[in-house]
Amino acid sequence: MSGSYTLIINCPDRPGIVYNVSGIIFAHGGNILESRQFEDRETGRFFLRIVFESDAEESVMADALGKLGTEFAMDWRLVRTGQPVKVLILVSKFDHCLAYLLYKVRMGEMPLEVVGIASNHPASALTASDIRDIPFHHLPVTRDTRAEQEACIKELVEESGAELVVLARYMQILSDDLATYLSGRCINIHHSFLPSFKGAKPYHQAHAHGVKMIGATAHYVTAELDEGPIIHQAVERVTHEDSADDLVRKGREVENHVLGDAVGWHVEHRVIMNGRKTVVFRN
Amino acid sequence: MSGSYTLIINCPDRPGIVYNVSGIIFAHGGNILESRQFEDRETGRFFLRIVFESDAEESVMADALGKLGTEFAMDWRLVRTGQPVKVLILVSKFDHCLAYLLYKVRMGEMPLEVVGIASNHPASALTASDIRDIPFHHLPVTRDTRAEQEACIKELVEESGAELVVLARYMQILSDDLATYLSGRCINIHHSFLPSFKGAKPYHQAHAHGVKMIGATAHYVTAELDEGPIIHQAVERVTHEDSADDLVRKGREVENHVLGDAVGWHVEHRVIMNGRKTVVFRN
Amino acid sequence: MSGSYTLIINCPDRPGIVYNVSGIIFAHGGNILESRQFEDRETGRFFLRIVFESDAEESVMADALGKLGTEFAMDWRLVRTGQPVKVLILVSKFDHCLAYLLYKVRMGEMPLEVVGIASNHPASALTASDIRDIPFHHLPVTRDTRAEQEACIKELVEESGAELVVLARYMQILSDDLATYLSGRCINIHHSFLPSFKGAKPYHQAHAHGVKMIGATAHYVTAELDEGPIIHQAVERVTHEDSADDLVRKGREVENHVLGDAVGWHVEHRVIMNGRKTVVFRN
Amino acid sequence: MSGSYTLIINCPDRPGIVYNVSGIIFAHGGNILESRQFEDRETGRFFLRIVFESDAEESVMADALGKLGTEFAMDWRLVRTGQPVKVLILVSKFDHCLAYLLYKVRMGEMPLEVVGIASNHPASALTASDIRDIPFHHLPVTRDTRAEQEACIKELVEESGAELVVLARYMQILSDDLATYLSGRCINIHHSFLPSFKGAKPYHQAHAHGVKMIGATAHYVTAELDEGPIIHQAVERVTHEDSADDLVRKGREVENHVLGDAVGWHVEHRVIMNGRKTVVFRN
Repeated sequence: MSGSYTLIINCPDRPGIVYNVSGIIFAHGGNILESRQFEDRETGRFFLRIVFESDAEESVMADALGKLGTEFAMDWRLVRTGQPVKVLILVSKFDHCLAYLLYKVRMGEMPLEVVGIASNHPASALTASDIRDIPFHHLPVTRDTRAEQEACIKELVEESGAELVVLARYMQILSDDLATYLSGRCINIHHSFLPSFKGAKPYHQAHAHGVKMIGATAHYVTAELDEGPIIHQAVERVTHEDSADDLVRKGREVENHVLGDAVGWHVEHRVIMNGRKTVVFRN
Repeated sequence: MSGSYTLIINCPDRPGIVYNVSGIIFAHGGNILESRQFEDRETGRFFLRIVFESDAEESVMADALGKLGTEFAMDWRLVRTGQPVKVLILVSKFDHCLAYLLYKVRMGEMPLEVVGIASNHPASALTASDIRDIPFHHLPVTRDTRAEQEACIKELVEESGAELVVLARYMQILSDDLATYLSGRCINIHHSFLPSFKGAKPYHQAHAHGVKMIGATAHYVTAELDEGPIIHQAVERVTHEDSADDLVRKGREVENHVLGDAVGWHVEHRVIMNGRKTVVFRN
Repeated sequence: MSGSYTLIINCPDRPGIVYNVSGIIFAHGGNILESRQFEDRETGRFFLRIVFESDAEESVMADALGKLGTEFAMDWRLVRTGQPVKVLILVSKFDHCLAYLLYKVRMGEMPLEVVGIASNHPASALTASDIRDIPFHHLPVTRDTRAEQEACIKELVEESGAELVVLARYMQILSDDLATYLSGRCINIHHSFLPSFKGAKPYHQAHAHGVKMIGATAHYVTAELDEGPIIHQAVERVTHEDSADDLVRKGREVENHVLGDAVGWHVEHRVIMNGRKTVVFRN
Repeated sequence: MSGSYTLIINCPDRPGIVYNVSGIIFAHGGNILESRQFEDRETGRFFLRIVFESDAEESVMADALGKLGTEFAMDWRLVRTGQPVKVLILVSKFDHCLAYLLYKVRMGEMPLEVVGIASNHPASALTASDIRDIPFHHLPVTRDTRAEQEACIKELVEESGAELVVLARYMQILSDDLATYLSGRCINIHHSFLPSFKGAKPYHQAHAHGVKMIGATAHYVTAELDEGPIIHQAVERVTHEDSADDLVRKGREVENHVLGDAVGWHVEHRVIMNGRKTVVFRN
């Protein structure tokens, strides 16, 4: 079975990596379509993303890569290019990011299958989203029921086979336990230009501070609140005329784009974690 | 003597302000060319900037405005449109902002007269600037001589008649005394997207943090370090490939524009302080 | 009945306009909340948009303005601030702009009532939109039936009371007759940075040309194809890696924002035609 | 002698290119620092830029690459990374782009040696530039003396060893002969968002057209006026308030950046011509 593959590699830098990897691809009749690489001079790590076409069996390729991987101490992954990634989306009352992601998926803009939507509010609270036949899970939460609710979320992840969880303005703070469980496979959108205005009501903080730009930050979730590796950020100009409510409105567009791009890059395997930072091979 | 005037007003909001001000202009044969206003709903203050042409004597206009100003408790200022503002520029080793400002002035882009340049380094340390016949003052400083050096700066301000002091990447921290002395008539450029990365080496902080955008902030100097009212901010995209040095280089362009725009708006009387914020009537 | 009004004026420039208009507002107990004005030095015309609160009856205000309007040869309009504008949206197969506008309306971001959607394709052709209970009109068209189809569109405009028609990627060329009928109350989105790449398949033209940015243009429809007064434009960076299809995808976001902003400004009465140009009092 | 090399390859696409090139680098003890590639699916051509460190002699590397180049029908070039490129700058009355380029060079931002400046105006006409000890050539031109003047330019190119000629707002139209002579090694900045507003006075054309953004385009010079392969473009927002003169002023900044970036990428060997387009491996 022939096709297009995407190979992602993360390993200590040393001479010969590209030569050996391209050798395996060449030996299996492959042709490289895209290639991006990065050496982090500070950490000595090397990152590579290659898209190639080959008639070889995936398992045959994987065998060869496995041997090389051991030799070079590689974290590596070989996936079918364009294979949809299963995603569970968590949302609260503000559903603009959810609406935007569903739009992108329906327009065929990202290889992503939404396997479920979960919210601490009922589906009737959604303003902008058109969820059609996507399974919706109402998981109300109070201070006292957090543990059980988070257990339900874990169960949803397991049952749905979700490879990625997206916090699309999910306004509940995750417990350390859940954050750790989701670490590296969960993207959050924070509605400020981090590290400015961490925590609650960032637009109101920004308004009080008199800043002239607001921003949004998409980052991987880790146990540290609003401190996970940043994938993407963008900003929008604001003026003295903008009230805190105006910032909320202007910010929605920025949040949509930042989260949409970050998720899109993730599901195309363009984002690699590098300690507390990320390598992003943007297209 | 006829001409164009710029009138700036800042007062408690109440009905009739525009009517009365435009009445004075009309009564003196004036024609309004530009007008911008803003009511701050939170503080109840009203801000107005009007550019108008009139054949009336400035003193006659001022008399009429003075009476109205008293009635409405106005802070008001009437200036000749385009009258150059006298500016003293302080700089340290990095002189890109100085070079940029001098370029703008020479291209006739802003009504500004540079009455002097002062630096804690000698003129020979300037890399990019072409100061020609502008008076240059070398004011070296050590921890022990700060008080005397700052006294020299005050003296320079007085003697040169500087109406504005620009800290064009002047890397010395002002004493509270000097900051207070310059309060409201001194613009600083900070090389981060405030309030992120206050203090020293913001690009290195940003690099360590893994942010995806860097920024610069122009603000009025007050006694609180890096906390004065923000006039302008802008950002530039960075990637995982950018070293801390790359951020420094990319940041120079942002700093230039942010400071250049902020100074340009100030000398055209487009910026009005509003507590810890600013009103900026951008063009 | 008290409330907030928006007043739009367009007249030959001469001294006293602001004084007289603000006098009427003041005389009716009004307080100005926002004011923007512009004198076109080339044409000698004056444009004014004022938002004010007043307890006066609308009809009483209108009487006073009517007299002033006659004296100053004003085109003027007084509307309730925030009064929804009735809009008919025309769309073809690509419905991303429709989806985006519906999203904005449902989020309460613009004072706009969608009174109908018409398409030369059936509702089942919509990919991204969630039209809910908005009346949908399938108006198929062939070369031979254009006249009848356009008659249906006119009828729809009349019956629905539409004050604005939005061509949201409606891919049919309007006849001169319909274009003239809709002139000044119809906004089109063209998917290029006009005047570059007029006519069909602009993204493919752009790709063949090797440009490094693509754009979109919202303009009022006039009888001249793709030549009506421009309301708004924006661009997006593209690279050598982008295929024509990538430009189509990247362009969708730009089209959405440009059309969304233009329609938003129109329904807030921020756009005034000025010959073949527009005056846009952006917020 | 060891060091860092930059290798640029342009050849028909086929399997094995990366494998063979990386093989040569590996065989010569090299380590790849940066690598960017592109396959043009439409033309079947492959483009590669690799930066690597190696202790091997340049001539030894070149021998090996020469053999591979013959086998794969490669256009290839091996240069020392950071080796300054010799540049001749042509300018007319508006010297902002010249000033900007000189600033970039002096700040050490681009590997570029200015071997001369030539102008149809005398050095005394320069407003913003500080040419210091760079040779300046006054080459006045009239309709009748174009041929001789262009002969002088050719001579300057030869004598100075200029590898690149930059038309930094040089307002003379080159003859087909000179354009052909400079083809592929001459970058022009056109002050519009091409293909809009070709030819003379583009800002005035843009103003008359009522566009809401202005732009600038850096392109390689070919015999077709304003039609050479585009390297870079950028835009700036304008409003109804901007006069044609305001566009000229706002445009200067855009021209500076677009030309500066294009020249910077060229001298870092990041730009490769691809028919009437370019491949640009931006950093």
